[in-house]
Amino acid sequence: MSKKMEKITSRDVDFAQWYTDVVKNSGLIDYGPVKGTMIFKPYGYAIWENIQRIMDAQFKKLGVTNVYFPLLIPASLFNKEKDHIEGFAPEVATVTKVGDKVLAEELYIRPTSETLIVDHFAKEVKSYRDLPLLYNQWTSVMRWEKTTRPFLRSSEFLWQEGHTIHSSKEEARNFTLNILDLYATFARETLSLPVISGRKTEKEKFAGAKETYTIEALMYDGQSLQSGTSHYFEDNFAKAFNIKFQNKEQKEEFGYTTSWGMSTRIIGAIIMTHADDFGLVLPSKVAPIQVQIININESDEVVNTSKQLFDQLVDDYRVNIDKTDKSFGFKISEAEIKGIPLRIEVGPRDLANGVVTISRRDIRSKEQIKLEDVKTYIDTQIQEYDKNIYNIALQNREQRTFKASTIEEYMKLLDEKQGFVLVPFCGEISCENDIKEKTQTNSRCIPDGVEQTKSKCFNCQKESNNMVYFARAY
Amino acid sequence: MSKKMEKITSRDVDFAQWYTDVVKNSGLIDYGPVKGTMIFKPYGYAIWENIQRIMDAQFKKLGVTNVYFPLLIPASLFNKEKDHIEGFAPEVATVTKVGDKVLAEELYIRPTSETLIVDHFAKEVKSYRDLPLLYNQWTSVMRWEKTTRPFLRSSEFLWQEGHTIHSSKEEARNFTLNILDLYATFARETLSLPVISGRKTEKEKFAGAKETYTIEALMYDGQSLQSGTSHYFEDNFAKAFNIKFQNKEQKEEFGYTTSWGMSTRIIGAIIMTHADDFGLVLPSKVAPIQVQIININESDEVVNTSKQLFDQLVDDYRVNIDKTDKSFGFKISEAEIKGIPLRIEVGPRDLANGVVTISRRDIRSKEQIKLEDVKTYIDTQIQEYDKNIYNIALQNREQRTFKASTIEEYMKLLDEKQGFVLVPFCGEISCENDIKEKTQTNSRCIPDGVEQTKSKCFNCQKESNNMVYFARAY
Repeated sequence: MSKKMEKITSRDVDFAQWYTDVVKNSGLIDYGPVKGTMIFKPYGYAIWENIQRIMDAQFKKLGVTNVYFPLLIPASLFNKEKDHIEGFAPEVATVTKVGDKVLAEELYIRPTSETLIVDHFAKEVKSYRDLPLLYNQWTSVMRWEKTTRPFLRSSEFLWQEGHTIHSSKEEARNFTLNILDLYATFARETLSLPVISGRKTEKEKFAGAKETYTIEALMYDGQSLQSGTSHYFEDNFAKAFNIKFQNKEQKEEFGYTTSWGMSTRIIGAIIMTHADDFGLVLPSKVAPIQVQIININESDEVVNTSKQLFDQLVDDYRVNIDKTDKSFGFKISEAEIKGIPLRIEVGPRDLANGVVTISRRDIRSKEQIKLEDVKTYIDTQIQEYDKNIYNIALQNREQRTFKASTIEEYMKLLDEKQGFVLVPFCGEISCENDIKEKTQTNSRCIPDGVEQTKSKCFNCQKESNNMVYFARAY
Repeated sequence: MSKKMEKITSRDVDFAQWYTDVVKNSGLIDYGPVKGTMIFKPYGYAIWENIQRIMDAQFKKLGVTNVYFPLLIPASLFNKEKDHIEGFAPEVATVTKVGDKVLAEELYIRPTSETLIVDHFAKEVKSYRDLPLLYNQWTSVMRWEKTTRPFLRSSEFLWQEGHTIHSSKEEARNFTLNILDLYATFARETLSLPVISGRKTEKEKFAGAKETYTIEALMYDGQSLQSGTSHYFEDNFAKAFNIKFQNKEQKEEFGYTTSWGMSTRIIGAIIMTHADDFGLVLPSKVAPIQVQIININESDEVVNTSKQLFDQLVDDYRVNIDKTDKSFGFKISEAEIKGIPLRIEVGPRDLANGVVTISRRDIRSKEQIKLEDVKTYIDTQIQEYDKNIYNIALQNREQRTFKASTIEEYMKLLDEKQGFVLVPFCGEISCENDIKEKTQTNSRCIPDGVEQTKSKCFNCQKESNNMVYFARAY
């Protein structure tokens, strides 16, 4: 990279421009030639690879097995579940020909593989002995979007989609909740994102689902980002696709299915939660480089010391010595903009005192650490770093969580502040459509861990059993 | 899976039917709803995951970084390199609309990402300091095939595609050869496939390439399977896409590119090389299960012993206790058909003598091994197993490698035998077209490690500098 570092707009001045600047200057992606598509450059893809590796191991502990289903879905198959097709129809990219030859049937590029996988389940499942089937795949999907932004909304995105089938409602519903818990824990512990979790309202649940669960992360600007969803279908898909199995009582019964997904949107959540005016701030567990070593000059002493530090750290950390021929100042800015958690500067003056200078990206500290203490210092600081960025995000969320009991109060909060607003809500689709019209916002979730009291709906004044979070959202 | 095991045709009676039977009965795949597509079921995908994990680590040692480029390529971009488009045009699946809306420009589903990545290189590369860029991606690609067979030829397949750009011819060409070497070593050491490697003839090289290198594996029936290719483009793509960089002498120069790929075809090679009339025989390094433990009954003694064996082995091996409620006989057949390298049977009579029975899938042995020796026995036998299946395949290759000096001799060998036939060949496209017409076969490669003597071309009698392998191929 011989390009000049460009300036980043302040996030308090123009959050949208700041986001674009950070994404562009940190080398995560480039735009693809087809509108709304993106190229994951090595630095961007490496974050996704780390997410994949950690999450995949967690899925496998639950007994999930990976599979791969074809990219293309025949129109007739896709159209089998009515609600489902209505949800996706306007967004599906359609293959109509191969070379010069027009196809007899149109083929859709998967916006999700629900129908393909459920159709396969119908063939595989005969008896309760075949159950459960716990499938997951890591793929790309396409949903044509009108307005696109890197990571947040693109015509093609990367994700994992899990699909399972079970022999009882309870088992299927529990699995749905186990995955929700896995997502929430992953967000909190691996990505330092203090998400809230809960159930979607009728209006916001997934096309064809009985219940949809979600984790929602609050961005620095107070808008919510849906960061992972887990759907319980009961036997809706099994009925549409005629998946019957012989149960232990030798009777035929429809299977119970779930599906769940997390996508590269989560990288957008990482950026909009943790990054600052100096660039990215990456959670250490998914940072492609965790420790960057920068030499102040190329004297033997400096080069040898940085090599020794590298050797000390390489077994436990993703550590890198910046060997490019850029200037020292440029290397520092680049380590900052790329959000590398810890930076070690090795220079002759420090070495004369037996120390190196170590900086933490989150607090932009500079501490002189004795050579023999470097490893211990890094061990402690990298944990503090993840805790600190979690706490900053949690503080933002707590300061931006409000209550309202009327639509006027809610609209005032939307005008003056941004954040999660907890309201009593009747849960009806017509009422939520009305709210959407008035405020351009949707409900985020019926949260776990919040007392669900009886009250009057904040919009329609009908009886309400649920406290629900509403917010502006990406 | 409560289905009955079906019978496998003998591979010496009908090799094609045998292949279909093995693929179907071993649970690797199912057919997708779109013609020529396949569903990788958990057992089939797990083999690919193991291949990915091992190969990806080897790529990374060469400095390769993973990326992800979009699925769709605008027609105008794809058409920039003339030879390239000619190679793929009749096979490309084309997106012409989204929902009901017809697109202004047709979009191709990638048959390879060459053009997208090279176009991106043109934006990224300014100076020799930006070079080399060493990219790889693990994706699916589509090439519409008229006749399809699982793994060997399908409309969509999984692969890795590497693309690199360098500042000198030498570096680019060396990288091409390093990857060829990586593929050959991987095939031999990880998959027990005794491949030959070499350069493709003018006719057989990749569309747009200066040189194409290949590894070729000989199947049990004596036909060749191209199992990985590495292409050196010199500056062909750089000229078509105008990728110039400022070299160390401050002069503008075109970049030098390579590309290389290995696909799920390699699983077809594994099957057709190692499998037998009892089902799959999987190389241990990529076998989803390396050791299968089967209990003869569910007495405490048996269950506890098998658990102890599991615990002893689980740190070093992918070990599994078959806990399904199938019959003992069925479990044995299933372990065989799935090609699990080693099988441990735990039963009360053996335990009375302090032993268990261990079978090796390749030689279908049955040995009684003392409980305390199980781990050591497995350690040795699993290595012997991989060596043995390599040697069997090597013996087959050696017995099926022939020489011919005239087209008549070659055609006689094709009629009576199958295998690699080494012939002196002029290398001209017109002559190879003529051979193709006469024999329906192509050259496989100009092999490494074979003396390249001057002679007369076996077909046209013109002067020939090269000894070339011809063979029937999948």
